[in-house]
Amino acid sequence: MTLLNNLQWRYATKKMNGQIVPQGKLDYILEAARLAPSSSGLQPYRVFVISNGQTLEQLKEFVFKEFPFNQEQIKDCSHLLVWTAWDGYTAERVGNVLLKTSIERSLPENQSEVYKKRLLDKYETLGKEWQENHCAKQAHISFGLAITAAAEQKVDTTPMEGFDNAKMDEFLKLEELGLKSVVIMPIGYRDEANDWLLSLKKWRTPKEEFVTEIA
Amino acid sequence: MTLLNNLQWRYATKKMNGQIVPQGKLDYILEAARLAPSSSGLQPYRVFVISNGQTLEQLKEFVFKEFPFNQEQIKDCSHLLVWTAWDGYTAERVGNVLLKTSIERSLPENQSEVYKKRLLDKYETLGKEWQENHCAKQAHISFGLAITAAAEQKVDTTPMEGFDNAKMDEFLKLEELGLKSVVIMPIGYRDEANDWLLSLKKWRTPKEEFVTEIA
Repeated sequence: MTLLNNLQWRYATKKMNGQIVPQGKLDYILEAARLAPSSSGLQPYRVFVISNGQTLEQLKEFVFKEFPFNQEQIKDCSHLLVWTAWDGYTAERVGNVLLKTSIERSLPENQSEVYKKRLLDKYETLGKEWQENHCAKQAHISFGLAITAAAEQKVDTTPMEGFDNAKMDEFLKLEELGLKSVVIMPIGYRDEANDWLLSLKKWRTPKEEFVTEIA
Repeated sequence: MTLLNNLQWRYATKKMNGQIVPQGKLDYILEAARLAPSSSGLQPYRVFVISNGQTLEQLKEFVFKEFPFNQEQIKDCSHLLVWTAWDGYTAERVGNVLLKTSIERSLPENQSEVYKKRLLDKYETLGKEWQENHCAKQAHISFGLAITAAAEQKVDTTPMEGFDNAKMDEFLKLEELGLKSVVIMPIGYRDEANDWLLSLKKWRTPKEEFVTEIA
């Protein structure tokens, strides 16, 4: 199967059947997320994985209270993956990534110092809110890679935004880690008999409208 | 080759060799971008494709004037792909997508009306800047899917942000289309002998730091 076949196969699963995704496939999906490219290679995001059990029950009760509809996947999924992103760029965070990259590449450490200063000066000018959005945007690339990896492994996913971000942050104690929740993805297996979306056609903007080719 | 192998193969190519990517592979990459999931299925993004020629020369001169370093790929790529996103949500844009989806799915049209109102009310409360960022975030998922599609097709890419967004918008006349440039991706083939990055190790945050598993 090619990637395009996999992308045609996948859909935002509305009802899962409770079957557990094997650890190997979960690891595969997380590895794709980890290998994502990001601006300046900073990878300003982390993924939390909650397996279906008591914690997920509590999370569902706490985070989705205001979202009573269409959240069935949280109950019937195998694992809930939560993408979180840095709440901003700091000298410590940026410096840490650049230094580790330099060491792994056997490059002189002072080289990363110059680059670090340039990045931090730019980020400071752009402000805290810009930084937060920028980190969240990078997380979406990683999220996209995880979607393709899951589809390749024939694991269903539901890319989701419909949750209370502040409550998710509180539940996962993200503030003390300098993180904010961004998007979530229940993974599992479609309940073919009971998912109303499965039989409905996938619609996308037609190619001629989606793409503008300039010679 | 599996997706993970492809993601290990790929890197942010710094020097390309000028070889042209066949139309079939270009179409494949764009189709992956088009099939991306997005919030409420709105697909608030469009892709512009500029093939290597006079227009790209002009674009390079106009948009990258302030970015003299590390922009070699713009010269040596086969095509430059530009992800743009809606500058905000409007009743017309949202209504258009929801209506077309309803028609394709043979659902009653008034169903999409209720959903449209709910979305627009929410978006209005969140404000124009939030909307712009939200659209751009969705574009990053599509961008991620295109990266994996290109890697599968053994086409090199350079995910990039380093350009003058305002000038890109002006060059592509995006304002009158209600679009804003988000991220760009030269595609082509690596110049193995002359790309300084090719031999350097890929570094990512270690898994134990990247992932937090909660039972």
